[in-house]
Amino acid sequence: MVIKCKAAVAWEPDKPLVIEEIEVAPPQANEIRVKIVATGLCHTDLYHLFEGKHNDGFPVVLGHEGAGIVESVGPGVTEFQPGDKVIPLFVYQCKECRFCKSPKTNLCEKGWSRLRYSVMSPEESRLTCRGKKVLQFMGTSTFSEYTVVNEMGLAKINPAAPLDKVCLLGCGICTGYGAAVNTAKVEPGSTCAVFGMGAVGLAAVMGCKAAGAKRIIAVDVNPEKFEKAKVFGATDFVNPKDHSKPISKVLEEMTNGGVDFSLECVGNVEVMRSALESCMQGWGVSVMVGWTDMADFSARPIQLIAGRTWKGTLFGGFKSKDGVPQMVNAYLDKKVKLDEFITHNLTLDQVNDAIEMMKHGQCIRTVMSVSPQ
Amino acid sequence: MVIKCKAAVAWEPDKPLVIEEIEVAPPQANEIRVKIVATGLCHTDLYHLFEGKHNDGFPVVLGHEGAGIVESVGPGVTEFQPGDKVIPLFVYQCKECRFCKSPKTNLCEKGWSRLRYSVMSPEESRLTCRGKKVLQFMGTSTFSEYTVVNEMGLAKINPAAPLDKVCLLGCGICTGYGAAVNTAKVEPGSTCAVFGMGAVGLAAVMGCKAAGAKRIIAVDVNPEKFEKAKVFGATDFVNPKDHSKPISKVLEEMTNGGVDFSLECVGNVEVMRSALESCMQGWGVSVMVGWTDMADFSARPIQLIAGRTWKGTLFGGFKSKDGVPQMVNAYLDKKVKLDEFITHNLTLDQVNDAIEMMKHGQCIRTVMSVSPQ
Ligand SMILES: NC(=O)c1ccc[n+]([C@@H]2O[C@H](COP(=O)([O-])OP(=O)(O)OC[C@H]3O[C@@H](n4cnc5c(N)ncnc54)[C@H](O)[C@@H]3O)[C@@H](O)[C@H]2O)c1
Ligand SMILES: NC(=O)c1ccc[n+]([C@@H]2O[C@H](COP(=O)([O-])OP(=O)(O)OC[C@H]3O[C@@H](n4cnc5c(N)ncnc54)[C@H](O)[C@@H]3O)[C@@H](O)[C@H]2O)c1
Ligand SMILES: [Zn+2]
Ligand SMILES: [Zn+2]
Ligand SMILES: [Zn+2]
Ligand SMILES: [Zn+2]
Repeated sequence: MVIKCKAAVAWEPDKPLVIEEIEVAPPQANEIRVKIVATGLCHTDLYHLFEGKHNDGFPVVLGHEGAGIVESVGPGVTEFQPGDKVIPLFVYQCKECRFCKSPKTNLCEKGWSRLRYSVMSPEESRLTCRGKKVLQFMGTSTFSEYTVVNEMGLAKINPAAPLDKVCLLGCGICTGYGAAVNTAKVEPGSTCAVFGMGAVGLAAVMGCKAAGAKRIIAVDVNPEKFEKAKVFGATDFVNPKDHSKPISKVLEEMTNGGVDFSLECVGNVEVMRSALESCMQGWGVSVMVGWTDMADFSARPIQLIAGRTWKGTLFGGFKSKDGVPQMVNAYLDKKVKLDEFITHNLTLDQVNDAIEMMKHGQCIRTVMSVSPQ
Repeated sequence: MVIKCKAAVAWEPDKPLVIEEIEVAPPQANEIRVKIVATGLCHTDLYHLFEGKHNDGFPVVLGHEGAGIVESVGPGVTEFQPGDKVIPLFVYQCKECRFCKSPKTNLCEKGWSRLRYSVMSPEESRLTCRGKKVLQFMGTSTFSEYTVVNEMGLAKINPAAPLDKVCLLGCGICTGYGAAVNTAKVEPGSTCAVFGMGAVGLAAVMGCKAAGAKRIIAVDVNPEKFEKAKVFGATDFVNPKDHSKPISKVLEEMTNGGVDFSLECVGNVEVMRSALESCMQGWGVSVMVGWTDMADFSARPIQLIAGRTWKGTLFGGFKSKDGVPQMVNAYLDKKVKLDEFITHNLTLDQVNDAIEMMKHGQCIRTVMSVSPQ
């Protein structure tokens, strides 16, 4: 049975989202229809809307940081039943492919081939609006009261979890936290630098601290972010705008040669380069977390020849179906913070306000209530 | 006492070397004067002469892949005595700095600060010619009958070692072999690609094989190199010129997704990019071994976000004073090959012929006899 419900549709790039009535098809084989209760807004949504320049990624329902309740399940689904609390996952975990079976990666062959410019193919979308297929951003589309996802892309979580908090584990917080603990593998006693104090960067700071870093340098061009950075464990704050010399030089001098680990959480190839160059020669590890597909990153070969390592992370290296429920429990056990990321609570109708705030650096995370629970 | 002897001097870039009489000062505190018996020619020598464009790196005595015998020692030297067989090291190992004490790196703080464009500062050179200070390339200058090096940059080796073979362990062979075993940490059963089948790349092939790789793809634009590659363990041979599609696509198709490890042994930023892109997403590791400081390397962020790792290596990650004597013994124990790299034996007087052959891809390694033993 088709559900008619409310969703925020992005009809074209650079324009405000429009609250529309959409139709959500019933779940097909191995699919689950989810009532979205709450969703965060992540910079990757903004990237698609304003920066990515992929015109064939529209119309689309954005949102990939949501939590909800199973409404109905399609044929063959045994793992989920109506009423389960769940988090949609933009990285699949089929548990069968060579990637899923490798301990080295959280990629899954099943999900990837189907995504183009971060949207699913039109044939796979279960959403229509005004008679037109609407794409599902990152396979999730959490800016909708209902969405349909594959069972490989859904995590069942602790029924005690507050959905308006744990929704943030659907992307930004797992990404930043995991970038530090899983990808960089930050070591006890180390010195770290995190570039970009959005939720992703703040979560990276939290991950560095959890891993035992003794010094965590927060770097942002917006000094208003530093107060929050302290909450998550940052020990030093550097605004590149306060310095005439390159930020990598500044960090090199602050740390007698460079940091052990750096994490780029901005999505800017120049910052990626700075993050690498801020690392200690010999053993420094720099991890790209920020996202852009508009430009090449670059550096001089000596940077790597001299012993630095450059890596990247997708969803913080967490195997999604295994990792997200664990992170939910870690939150319930007060081992990771979530509440402190939330600076604003709005409703889905106010999504354009949330977008404007993030664009202007006035929020960390806005959580929007979508459907009543 | 000053020694007058023969050396090949590079007076300026792009010109043939000139065999000159030079003066070699006595060793000062912690220095050793070495009679060079044999030397290889490495592409890094060619780089300095033809490609690097650093005019203030001249006049210089090139050569950094040599072996010889201690002639005399300066004040304070206890580790060496006249008659010891030795290999000069372009990477120092002081055993006291934070780099030397870290198991993560083979850099040494003592050596690095003193090198500029791979030459030592004029104050530190002990060579003069026609009344002019001549720079010591990479601190070594093995294209000379005698040279003076610091004790931090000299390895005492097994007296049974044939100097006209083990000289190659002064650079290329340790570099390529170590790039595979120490830096890439090639795993048993893995698939590897090595770009560039000079001595460095062939040694990388040998390292991949020693580490248990099951498939080793040799990539070179000069098909004459493939016969040698087989000797060292390559299983597949790809000439990018035989394909219209990018080499990374070719390798991706050959390997169902990409190689586990790739090693760039050419020194070309485009090849570095291809080597990265040839890696399997999720876990592929690409190591830069080739050297250039004339251009940036670059790639799309997705390459790293999708789980690839980019690294580099200097001298194959070997802690130089510890590693070189071990590699000499491994050669004497027939655990690593050296003879098979040597395609030509010449004398130092013929150094310009050796250079021409390398430039035109007509040799792997030429070993030149320098002083009689
Ligand atoms: N790899 C992944 O799986 C993944 C997942 C989620 C988000 N992301 C990416 O992570 C990035 C951060 O996301 P977010 O939601 O935290 O974004 P955000 O917009 O909330 O935060 C970005 C921060 O970067 C700061 N910044 C901008 N330019 C800077 C500069 N030159 N130097 C230092 N700081 C600078 C901004 O002031 C802001 O505080 C985005 O690129 C997003 O697309 C990647
Ligand atoms: N990192 C280090 O510590 C270190 C040490 C020694 C040498 N090096 C560098 O390693 C590199 C190799 O040194 P070598 O002495 O073996 O050089 P070489 O000139 O003997 O070999 C280079 C090989 O690369 C091949 N080649 C050229 N263009 C190619 C392309 N586009 N694709 C594939 N193959 C290509 C050539 O045909 C040749 O066989 C040089 O850049 C040298 O400076 C680095
Ligand atoms: Zn899978
Ligand atoms: Zn996100
Ligand atoms: Zn060399
Ligand atoms: Zn040292």
